[in-house]
Amino acid sequence: MPDPSLDVLCIGNAIVDVIADATDDFLTDEGLVKGTMRLIDAGEAERLYAHMGPGRQVSGGSAGNTAAGVAALGGRAGFIGQVAPDQLGEFYRHDLTAAGVEFITPAADVGVPTARSMILVTPDGHRTMNTFLGAAQHLPASALDEEQIRGSAILYLEGYLWDPETPRYAMIRAIEVARRASRKIAFTLSDIFCVDRHRDGFGALLDDGRIDILFANQAEIEALAGVPHLDTAIAAVSGKVETLVVTRSEDGALATRGGERVEVPAEPIDALVDTTGAGDLFAAGFLVGEARGLGLERSLRLGAICAAEVIQHYGARPEADLRALAGELFA
Amino acid sequence: MPDPSLDVLCIGNAIVDVIADATDDFLTDEGLVKGTMRLIDAGEAERLYAHMGPGRQVSGGSAGNTAAGVAALGGRAGFIGQVAPDQLGEFYRHDLTAAGVEFITPAADVGVPTARSMILVTPDGHRTMNTFLGAAQHLPASALDEEQIRGSAILYLEGYLWDPETPRYAMIRAIEVARRASRKIAFTLSDIFCVDRHRDGFGALLDDGRIDILFANQAEIEALAGVPHLDTAIAAVSGKVETLVVTRSEDGALATRGGERVEVPAEPIDALVDTTGAGDLFAAGFLVGEARGLGLERSLRLGAICAAEVIQHYGARPEADLRALAGELFA
Repeated sequence: MPDPSLDVLCIGNAIVDVIADATDDFLTDEGLVKGTMRLIDAGEAERLYAHMGPGRQVSGGSAGNTAAGVAALGGRAGFIGQVAPDQLGEFYRHDLTAAGVEFITPAADVGVPTARSMILVTPDGHRTMNTFLGAAQHLPASALDEEQIRGSAILYLEGYLWDPETPRYAMIRAIEVARRASRKIAFTLSDIFCVDRHRDGFGALLDDGRIDILFANQAEIEALAGVPHLDTAIAAVSGKVETLVVTRSEDGALATRGGERVEVPAEPIDALVDTTGAGDLFAAGFLVGEARGLGLERSLRLGAICAAEVIQHYGARPEADLRALAGELFA
Repeated sequence: MPDPSLDVLCIGNAIVDVIADATDDFLTDEGLVKGTMRLIDAGEAERLYAHMGPGRQVSGGSAGNTAAGVAALGGRAGFIGQVAPDQLGEFYRHDLTAAGVEFITPAADVGVPTARSMILVTPDGHRTMNTFLGAAQHLPASALDEEQIRGSAILYLEGYLWDPETPRYAMIRAIEVARRASRKIAFTLSDIFCVDRHRDGFGALLDDGRIDILFANQAEIEALAGVPHLDTAIAAVSGKVETLVVTRSEDGALATRGGERVEVPAEPIDALVDTTGAGDLFAAGFLVGEARGLGLERSLRLGAICAAEVIQHYGARPEADLRALAGELFA
């Protein structure tokens, strides 16, 4: 196969975040479960928006955050996702492109606007997400640029994109194209509730050997394995993928590959501000390392450095110079 | 006249801010003068946006920030300004309404989108603003709700709205309506370059006795008077308005009324983060005090408290509980 033109090509929901402060009472009144992500329809989105406080808009989406992280680290990143031809869609495309990410999926007028997630931040710093998937949930397989997929060292997919049916088929097609081009395929379980919703589908992907690199946090891997014990869950899942990466917040991260198991501590931080994007940025660092063949330990450490940066400020995309932070690890 | 239903009704450009980090080299390459606001057309807005980095969107506009401040302090606030029927316009309306501001000016489809200001933040914290006025510059006098104006204790106008011709006539009409209802009229000079552009027009407003309360910072009042000396400038202007308010950053603020002159120090702060909105929020505090007849000193102190809050965080709208900060000053 020819040398790849991209290190990491990320596919996911193209979502603009609308972030507002909220009280615990507000969550209670709205019947929301703190710290979770729920999917809502257009009517509920309009109703909730009318009730919530003033907000700020920033581009988000799990895989989009990862793509921005890959680019910030100096890797060659691409993103596949669908926006509508509207102001939010232009905003989303601008932010990724300005971050140095190749984003060529066309905007699609399918009668719904660009996706948005209303993120309510309570005084304790927790975030409760209410996501209207809009145009993102209609990403068709026909929108894929297969040449781009064949030219990427790693295809990275977010579990969230499994929720709506149309992009699920687009993901399956993207996996096929990458597999035939002998590229690596990485997947994140995204969220414990996402695992609950799609345990069968995710399990089938793994059983069929379609995933080379699997990302999960402790809760997600335990949910997937159906056992409330980390090492048992790792043992159950690690045989199904070439590489398993488990992130454990302040307890660091670990990866298994064949008989090898490597652990790294979390990077020291000055102050925890906002954990949003920690997993997305960990994946960015790890994947850049893998794309460049740096080996498990250096890849894990790159992931830990990227995650540490993003949790020390508000927002899920990097603000500091990740390449400088990585230093000799990725020179 | 009946008791007012609003304390302060603010009229200004309805603008969504798009804030991005930029280097000094970027400003140089783009030929931008650091720390200033310039008006740009749609083509230049598109060109600059394509070059600038990833951003975040927040509602702004000088008078809009003031209205949000009045409401946060517990005052009854209204806003007049024109957005387009698009996503940015909905975002702008939501934020003001969610902040408790009465905003009933209809959105208008005049072939241009909602106004946006691209704000480039350099590493030294300075902000360079590039404003595309969009729908805001087409606010017609016919969009005014004259009943709302007659029902407001103070009509507050931003000098920036004098730039485009159509809303200039709307402002003049609003002043007439307020004057006939025996309401107070307040005006801010907005910006030293705005004073340079409109010295004749602003001078005529003052000479005709149409302004009761004038807000300026030191540079603006000196530019208006054409003398580089504060007390001389104050002496030249103070006779033309009932109340003159001059804000002086860390040197506090002063007001003159008839023979009276009152000075207050700046409120102590922990750390200066971002000066955007300092003048807007000072005006909010002062105007609430005036609307409730609290007298010059208490009104100035309310202004200083509101300004101190907004400069200790990013963004030009209040985040802390201004009413609690004001305490007994405005109970």
